[in-house]
Amino acid sequence: MLQKPRGTRDFLPDEMERRRLIEGRMREAVRRWGYREVCTPDFEHLELFTMKSGEGIIQEMYTFEDKGGRQMTLRPEVTAAVLRMYVNEGKVLPKPIRWCYFADCFRYERPQKGRYRQFWQFGVELIGADTASADAEVIMLADEALQSSGVTFDLHVGHLAPMKHLLSDLSPEDQRVIMACLDKRDQNALSAALEGRGLTHLTEPLAALSECQTVAEVFEIAGDVPERARIEETFALLDSQGIEYRPDFGIARGLDYYTGMVFEGFARNLGAENQILGGGTYRLAHLFGGDDVASCGFAIGFDRVMVSIGDFPLEPGTVVGVVCTPEARERALEVARAFRNAGVRTEVDLMERGMGAQIAHAAKTADFAVVLGKREVDAGTVTLKNLHTGEQQEKSLEEAIAEVARHGDR
Amino acid sequence: MLQKPRGTRDFLPDEMERRRLIEGRMREAVRRWGYREVCTPDFEHLELFTMKSGEGIIQEMYTFEDKGGRQMTLRPEVTAAVLRMYVNEGKVLPKPIRWCYFADCFRYERPQKGRYRQFWQFGVELIGADTASADAEVIMLADEALQSSGVTFDLHVGHLAPMKHLLSDLSPEDQRVIMACLDKRDQNALSAALEGRGLTHLTEPLAALSECQTVAEVFEIAGDVPERARIEETFALLDSQGIEYRPDFGIARGLDYYTGMVFEGFARNLGAENQILGGGTYRLAHLFGGDDVASCGFAIGFDRVMVSIGDFPLEPGTVVGVVCTPEARERALEVARAFRNAGVRTEVDLMERGMGAQIAHAAKTADFAVVLGKREVDAGTVTLKNLHTGEQQEKSLEEAIAEVARHGDR
Repeated sequence: MLQKPRGTRDFLPDEMERRRLIEGRMREAVRRWGYREVCTPDFEHLELFTMKSGEGIIQEMYTFEDKGGRQMTLRPEVTAAVLRMYVNEGKVLPKPIRWCYFADCFRYERPQKGRYRQFWQFGVELIGADTASADAEVIMLADEALQSSGVTFDLHVGHLAPMKHLLSDLSPEDQRVIMACLDKRDQNALSAALEGRGLTHLTEPLAALSECQTVAEVFEIAGDVPERARIEETFALLDSQGIEYRPDFGIARGLDYYTGMVFEGFARNLGAENQILGGGTYRLAHLFGGDDVASCGFAIGFDRVMVSIGDFPLEPGTVVGVVCTPEARERALEVARAFRNAGVRTEVDLMERGMGAQIAHAAKTADFAVVLGKREVDAGTVTLKNLHTGEQQEKSLEEAIAEVARHGDR
Repeated sequence: MLQKPRGTRDFLPDEMERRRLIEGRMREAVRRWGYREVCTPDFEHLELFTMKSGEGIIQEMYTFEDKGGRQMTLRPEVTAAVLRMYVNEGKVLPKPIRWCYFADCFRYERPQKGRYRQFWQFGVELIGADTASADAEVIMLADEALQSSGVTFDLHVGHLAPMKHLLSDLSPEDQRVIMACLDKRDQNALSAALEGRGLTHLTEPLAALSECQTVAEVFEIAGDVPERARIEETFALLDSQGIEYRPDFGIARGLDYYTGMVFEGFARNLGAENQILGGGTYRLAHLFGGDDVASCGFAIGFDRVMVSIGDFPLEPGTVVGVVCTPEARERALEVARAFRNAGVRTEVDLMERGMGAQIAHAAKTADFAVVLGKREVDAGTVTLKNLHTGEQQEKSLEEAIAEVARHGDR
């Protein structure tokens, strides 16, 4: 039996409906903030992602040569593609540009719980605003989009400047190694890396940075940084709006990529793979031949959000099953059309079996059966049977539609 | 400057909004008929598509070896994947199964107008109903989904049995060659193929079959076929519902794949590449290790539908731009939240420039400016400026929201 590729998923209707519902809530959240959807291809030139993330990313990507001999890859994330699109087509637009996307991404890695080879990201990019207001907007919007899904999560907000300031005397190579250990929150590797480099004086301040409860403490530990006023302003804006977050200046994500503010979100009920949000300020467009524009964005790991919120019950709406004798079939199609025109999901029998079998099937799939035989066709009526109560009554088509609509309103 | 891959597209917000609107109409059409969305991976094992369509399809596909040495391919169409999913997970579901999808597909071919390397299909599969009612339902639903988009098109409906009956004395290889010529509607190739095989007696009936105006004529030309009653019943159901179509028994699509009824749709205002719909009855599940279940479905070429209907005007809804002095910024975020909670798209200034520059920007992007300075903060009011008329007035936040809502209702 042919199977789907390893690490991918099929979605049956119930799961798909839940996904569309949560997607729709996130869409509505960002719409109200003025973010409009864009769409880029599923595959891009390989160099787009190596320029952003280095050659190391190749081993995690689905890369292939197209028939013109060009190296292509299925996108592992969306931000680079959106900024490539900005460079190609968006530079003339008034700033700031507010874009969102809901897109599938591909990563070649060992399948495990909450990690799939095709996965979906919901995200935004805010391009061309380089202010604390911009930073705060993107954090608040990420919070609101996640809240709209019903997921319970912890929001961590930090900034790279204090950590970079602590490490400023180190060589770029040493900085990279130390930041990588910090990013993985791997204390053993960090201690070893610091000891091996004679940097044990950094052990305590680096640990303390992660533990700061307030922004003021950060500058006591790391010393003053030029970005201080903007950091304080960003956090003050979040506080003024009652955003619940934890200051976390131990976030060391994407050193080569993020330029300042960084934030992450973690679902409370997931295990090791619980990160559902990542974002921050960055500059990418200049790498792709564009201007050195300040940008800020986030991506939500949509699949993990769905795992976290679980299989909530759906509200399917009223379903009508139309059953009929052979001579009433044309009338059945007319009746079905009338119900559909009223917005009602209406399924006509297609198996052409006896009435008993048709009604038994309808009882499994519908709330009402509309029964049509010779009597109803001759009289221009329908028999409406409530499949929950068993009650049935012959009535006009208009009355039947009205009764079904009343059921749907309850 | 880095570019998107050849033959692919980026979609900016206006175009994306149009696409989502039309997609939504098609979704609503099929929802009312009881079709529910499923989703399969963007890539599949290569053999899924070669089993369905033969090795010839390989040259049109994006195929790659994954790191486990398995041959994978980006899906060139969705039906095979949906039936693979049915075999894996859907066999236990009550029949008939009504599924729909909106999915991107990939085809490696020379880019040309209306043909892209990544393209979208909207389609349905009806699995497990082998009746004229089932055939008629899928045709009527294809018609309704296309109508919902506003595209003007011609619907052709046929059946493979009469043509196969005419060719029944030929070897399978000769049948294949003749059918291929018929499928391409290539009269020169057809004449040559018939002459080369001494089959010129078929020239006239094959031409006549394509020209039949009624189903009755078909059987006069092709002789009686076992499927006659079902064909007549299907067409009678379409006629009874006022479906506008052309009988076209010259359709010879997918000989190895379709088993009976076939139909196509053509946009009236497109050139050579004007087919926007294809569908019919088929049997596929048994190829993939499942049961020999009767199926019927269609796929709409979504991108061509969008080309055909063109860039219709959007109704963007009311947009509010919030502008503020530095000391009013926190209040601006509160005011923005109140507008958003009322469903209004609300954009807060992020550039932190002077009030004049902020209002000038709002005038380009919004219908109303909400102005917040020291006076408004102290008084707990807002100044609402209608950016179309220039009128402005200081009022309570609630009154401002009500006025904006009234504007949206107009």
